Amino acid sequence: MNAPLTPQAALAADALAPRRVFNFSPGPSTMPQSVLEQAAAEMLDYRGCGVSVLEMSHRSAAFEDILARAEQDLRDLLAIPAAFKVLFMQGGAIGQNAIVPMNLVARRPGRAIDVVVTGEWSRKSWTEAQRYGDVALAASTLGAAHDHIPDPAGWALRQDASYVHLCSNETVHGVEFQTLPDLRALGSEAPLVVDASSNIASRTIDWTRAALVFAGAQKNLGPSGITVVIVREDLLGHALPTCPSVFDYRVTAEQRSMLNTPPTYPIYLLGLMLQWLKGEGGVPAIEQRNRAKSDRLYAAIDGSGGFYRNPVAPADRSRMNVPFVMPSEALTDRFVAEAEAAGLSSLRGHKSVGGLRASIYNAMPEAGVEALVAFMHDFQRRHG
Amino acid sequence: MNAPLTPQAALAADALAPRRVFNFSPGPSTMPQSVLEQAAAEMLDYRGCGVSVLEMSHRSAAFEDILARAEQDLRDLLAIPAAFKVLFMQGGAIGQNAIVPMNLVARRPGRAIDVVVTGEWSRKSWTEAQRYGDVALAASTLGAAHDHIPDPAGWALRQDASYVHLCSNETVHGVEFQTLPDLRALGSEAPLVVDASSNIASRTIDWTRAALVFAGAQKNLGPSGITVVIVREDLLGHALPTCPSVFDYRVTAEQRSMLNTPPTYPIYLLGLMLQWLKGEGGVPAIEQRNRAKSDRLYAAIDGSGGFYRNPVAPADRSRMNVPFVMPSEALTDRFVAEAEAAGLSSLRGHKSVGGLRASIYNAMPEAGVEALVAFMHDFQRRHG
Repeated sequence: MNAPLTPQAALAADALAPRRVFNFSPGPSTMPQSVLEQAAAEMLDYRGCGVSVLEMSHRSAAFEDILARAEQDLRDLLAIPAAFKVLFMQGGAIGQNAIVPMNLVARRPGRAIDVVVTGEWSRKSWTEAQRYGDVALAASTLGAAHDHIPDPAGWALRQDASYVHLCSNETVHGVEFQTLPDLRALGSEAPLVVDASSNIASRTIDWTRAALVFAGAQKNLGPSGITVVIVREDLLGHALPTCPSVFDYRVTAEQRSMLNTPPTYPIYLLGLMLQWLKGEGGVPAIEQRNRAKSDRLYAAIDGSGGFYRNPVAPADRSRMNVPFVMPSEALTDRFVAEAEAAGLSSLRGHKSVGGLRASIYNAMPEAGVEALVAFMHDFQRRHG
Repeated sequence: MNAPLTPQAALAADALAPRRVFNFSPGPSTMPQSVLEQAAAEMLDYRGCGVSVLEMSHRSAAFEDILARAEQDLRDLLAIPAAFKVLFMQGGAIGQNAIVPMNLVARRPGRAIDVVVTGEWSRKSWTEAQRYGDVALAASTLGAAHDHIPDPAGWALRQDASYVHLCSNETVHGVEFQTLPDLRALGSEAPLVVDASSNIASRTIDWTRAALVFAGAQKNLGPSGITVVIVREDLLGHALPTCPSVFDYRVTAEQRSMLNTPPTYPIYLLGLMLQWLKGEGGVPAIEQRNRAKSDRLYAAIDGSGGFYRNPVAPADRSRMNVPFVMPSEALTDRFVAEAEAAGLSSLRGHKSVGGLRASIYNAMPEAGVEALVAFMHDFQRRHG
């Protein structure tokens, strides 16, 4: 039995102990402490292998197992049908803005691409796609400050489109599709491509409606540097001749995401995140918790008598990214500074829209939202 | 003061203590234990930020500092002139096999690319480049089992080439350029592109000869998932219209490698590796150590009376990857199994060539090479 620490030693240990804040960063973003603890514990010796995951060959049995488990856990959690391939790629969602058209646009002779623009991220996808095809806006909120989701019944969908693109959650503007549109019911046979970077694994996905879902991992699935692409098999094999081999979906599927050395450590961390999510009860359970967390925060905003305001149409509000504004820039700056001091970090809004933003992905505990709401009440009491 | 551990507690602690082997993996590959220990210690709270590096916004001051330091340390260590940009990209060296021609081939109307093939990796570059330009072999050892570096005096260099490509170290075949060729002295004005994935930062680079150097980090610079590109400024701005924005060198340089969310954790680890390398005395010191390590191992092979054999011309032997063969496949299998049991891991040769291979990058300590040499002697004594 160890002797009790002296007061000096206790102070020193406390100074060395990790201090954790509630981190509302839009991405990369907070991860469960248990995941970080496991990664730290396994850093020098992964489960008796004698090497770190960082150091192991991607062709080793240990890494092959990490990769296979990550894929299976993702399939389990998102109920991915067998007709879809799961690819682990590099280059992020912004890379996919080019990689998607490079792989899909040649499916139809006219190379038509229909894009729905609902915020900053789909706007970027729309711009990049213009390098590869005949791009048209199926719908957009470009003139409406991106404060709602346009009703799919009014979308202009072309019969010959290679695909239709949308972003299921916009991190900057805080709008989210609560359900994916049923393109077939709208008269289109085109496959639906969904940039789900900021809400993947936060709710179930209707695979009868989505044909390709991609996501940078750094919000709900782990660290940056790994991109998940879930693609229906019939969309493989149409890559442009100028598509780099490593970004050709068919080649990537055939090589089980190992044509090149994959980002092994980000894949390992993604796997730990998926195991954590299973332990939390899976996607339906986390979806319920995400709904409760965002409801709590929107209620605090809407109940503040206008001191805090969110401009988004209530039915289209994001459960992941909650932007809000305050009466003045001076108060906004003060809010950010005092919140940081109180252990509530990264609450400043995106520079393009200003104000404040709380990103509350899967790994943000309810206690973090409670702490933020309490701080908001207190701040309003002192400065309102 | 803590009481001494009981024997049971000591055993339990020992069972939990990380067991480290000498890891000869060709990539991802061994990293210094001190780097892994620092990463583990900082996992939950990076230097008082209250968050892990994994969780911090790439726009945060803390990450901006990590990125800037990594670039500056790389510039210091490799003596990179101001006229070169340092880019941090994704997609690995196999990605660069497409990204290089997408960025450089349009510099000349004929889109000519001259490639020197000396092994598996330059062969892949040669194949992929054919999607983008008029590719010719300047020289190759395709008919000679890749057992030497062809004399540059005999290379067929075209006057109008957009660039000349070579791989400075071939991991599978174990051949290495001991100096880079002086293209100008050979009558070519084309920029020299060097795939230095497996020997970057293991020796100095002559920047009067190289115009673009790229490297996946997972051998000498850290983990997989991060690619370093060092490119002379005059080569920027020539990307094909179909080059994805995120892989356009000019855009990447302008955005300081942050057009998209970079692979933040791999960049952090790369930074730790660079700081470790500085602490070891920098590139000239590690170059000397690498020479001593590989000399020791080749001497053991050459002194074995033919029991171990390396087929490469002595002047062109790699200091990073030392392939060798044994009298039979049965003995090779036995060697691998006994070496693993002795804590010498990942010594099997690449599947395309068989035999054995010891990858001894910067982070492989001299003690690892000594242990391997001792094992080789002992194995020969028992089975020779």
